[in-house]
Amino acid sequence: MAPRVRAAIVASGSELVRGDRQDRNGPHLAGSLLRHGIDPVRITVVGDEPAELEGALRSGLEEDLLVVSGGLGPTHDDRTIELLAHVTGRPLAVDTELASGIETLSRRVAKRLNRPYADFAGGVLKQAALPAGAEWVGLVGTAPAVVLDTGACVAVALPGPPRELQELWPRVLETAPLLALRGRAQAPGRRVLRLFGVSESAVAQALEAAGGESEGVAVTICARDFEIHVDLFVEAGAEARAAALEAALVEANERYVFSRDERPTAELVLDLLRAQGLTLGAAESCTGGLVAARLTDVPGSSDVFVGAVVAYSNEVKAAQLGVPEAVLAEHGAVSEQVAAAMAQGARAQLGADVAVAVTGVAGPGGGTAAKPVGLVFLHAAGPAGELARRLDFPGDRDTIRRRSAVAALHLVRRLVTQT
Amino acid sequence: MAPRVRAAIVASGSELVRGDRQDRNGPHLAGSLLRHGIDPVRITVVGDEPAELEGALRSGLEEDLLVVSGGLGPTHDDRTIELLAHVTGRPLAVDTELASGIETLSRRVAKRLNRPYADFAGGVLKQAALPAGAEWVGLVGTAPAVVLDTGACVAVALPGPPRELQELWPRVLETAPLLALRGRAQAPGRRVLRLFGVSESAVAQALEAAGGESEGVAVTICARDFEIHVDLFVEAGAEARAAALEAALVEANERYVFSRDERPTAELVLDLLRAQGLTLGAAESCTGGLVAARLTDVPGSSDVFVGAVVAYSNEVKAAQLGVPEAVLAEHGAVSEQVAAAMAQGARAQLGADVAVAVTGVAGPGGGTAAKPVGLVFLHAAGPAGELARRLDFPGDRDTIRRRSAVAALHLVRRLVTQT
Repeated sequence: MAPRVRAAIVASGSELVRGDRQDRNGPHLAGSLLRHGIDPVRITVVGDEPAELEGALRSGLEEDLLVVSGGLGPTHDDRTIELLAHVTGRPLAVDTELASGIETLSRRVAKRLNRPYADFAGGVLKQAALPAGAEWVGLVGTAPAVVLDTGACVAVALPGPPRELQELWPRVLETAPLLALRGRAQAPGRRVLRLFGVSESAVAQALEAAGGESEGVAVTICARDFEIHVDLFVEAGAEARAAALEAALVEANERYVFSRDERPTAELVLDLLRAQGLTLGAAESCTGGLVAARLTDVPGSSDVFVGAVVAYSNEVKAAQLGVPEAVLAEHGAVSEQVAAAMAQGARAQLGADVAVAVTGVAGPGGGTAAKPVGLVFLHAAGPAGELARRLDFPGDRDTIRRRSAVAALHLVRRLVTQT
Repeated sequence: MAPRVRAAIVASGSELVRGDRQDRNGPHLAGSLLRHGIDPVRITVVGDEPAELEGALRSGLEEDLLVVSGGLGPTHDDRTIELLAHVTGRPLAVDTELASGIETLSRRVAKRLNRPYADFAGGVLKQAALPAGAEWVGLVGTAPAVVLDTGACVAVALPGPPRELQELWPRVLETAPLLALRGRAQAPGRRVLRLFGVSESAVAQALEAAGGESEGVAVTICARDFEIHVDLFVEAGAEARAAALEAALVEANERYVFSRDERPTAELVLDLLRAQGLTLGAAESCTGGLVAARLTDVPGSSDVFVGAVVAYSNEVKAAQLGVPEAVLAEHGAVSEQVAAAMAQGARAQLGADVAVAVTGVAGPGGGTAAKPVGLVFLHAAGPAGELARRLDFPGDRDTIRRRSAVAALHLVRRLVTQT
């Protein structure tokens, strides 16, 4: 078994610790590390309190790898580099090559903002000061990525803006200290199962019945909007155990397994349709564009997905989707009849081979005894037939909308795979 | 000045520390604490390694308040309560009232899943065991919220599913130990400015020029999808300084300030339209439903927002929005002419007073020298006139789509406020 290589991640930013913004860098780095066989053991989010950042750095330096995001800017409350120098006991010195790189970028910014460069000069020197022994990698904004190998730990500092971080991180992975760590680690194998229509606890029971986790095979089970994501992390030598466990899980839940890879469901549905030469359209009421948004989130979706009608008002349902006024009047907008008419209308009006429709009560208002908040009708129509589904679930507006969108994608999947 | 009351937040979940899912609980709790005058100093995300969770609990217990989410489930790797008992040196004992509550819920689940209750009995006893002196609050799923006042620290454990956590947390805030903490804290005043069309650094410069942060006034500046969110946190006695600082910031950026409250932009736009008795529709190409999804995310949006056409293919642009084939052929789908025709078509076809259209190249494919990835045309049309905007920005597909959707909402705002 390969020795574990452990990493701590620190995300610095007062807007993060105050909850004004979700930290995207920690999850991004953690996922990347895992794929390289390095275990992220902790993500710590701290604000602008120096003692908190210092504490997080000190405890991170006890791992094999410490990756810090944020706090590299030009202002007084950007303290990552200064504190990294402090906790590693190294003096700071201006790197002249780096200073000249940052100066070039800052002169450009000054010009664009029509301000004298003198306003920036102090910040440039601050951003170009590195702890002795550190190297820098690339400049996307005015903050570089910094790599410092202390012997006991490799410390990496990255700029906070996710776009800059995501551009610089792959370059950091190719530096000598990171290559050495990656050499010590051994990327685990990973097997994934994606299930739909089964409960998390039923999958957990199936896992237990199959013998559960064992030496070298770690399993995570995670419910996400009606889907159950099962991941098996397999160390070298444990492949046979992992394969047997996976087979047992599949056997116990055969009709619910819809994927054994990590493609998002929208991408998987688009791939299925593409393989059959079918196009897709959508008609959305309560999901209000979420189904279309998920589909168009996939690069290259335009060869399959032609478009959608977000029919929030009854007038739009009638005019744009051809839902008969009589059906709306008799059954109400939230009904299986209207869902069916919306799907059929979307096929015809959008010229799509397959169409899926969603209508429901997302709340918090608008519910009645007969049609409570959480009641949703789905309908999918295609050249080979139609499928309808009624959902009735608890939750807030956001949950109901999100789950409805996911369920709509799965209804399309079932329609085109006939499962 | 009120003494600071400090809180540590711990989010436990292997899917969180592996980066498979973003932690939503930490930011939710942090924002809530801040509004109650309690300072979140740290959010630590840990996985299923007991030593990491134990370490996070120990360091959290050094603060006034420790809030932990996750790890309260029935299975062996749910260790929060057991470790909390361990680190506070308290024995675990089954709370019989709690056990009976969890049993009732679990019998219901067993019945729904058509499985014997015996499968659940062990988990029920595990979930009903609490550290001596702890109280429990409410049951949404099978895990309760647990509050343990050690004298030095109030420790709270909450279930990991965000919906359960968000339902239980307000009840925890009303327990005696939390009320005592809240009494010691003093909720700061908060003033917010929301700006659009100005850079983060320009706002930071304006802040510096106005004298910057001062005793009792903390300021955060945060760029989010083209918007700049400025928050002033004001302690008692510092109101005059805060008002002066806010006035200076407004004066320096007057034309960019669009809001002084925290309503999401979609809600603000809907409110503006509602006040004028106008309805809204949308025509989306590259945003693929994101504009509609943001609008329909707002409860009660249906009285203003009638619907949208997601016109991903040229055929749908022509058939559903009446964009002339000749205009598409001459200028291409990504052009100011097509954006204008889409907006006008959406007004007519959806029967909306105001319509906004988006067409652009979100990438990563599809860019050309003349029309590169990141080129986006917006157009808003209403009874009193029209506004067009060309955007040209860097970023990945997700960023381009998100920013385009936000910019589209702002174009509607400008159209109806004539600013």
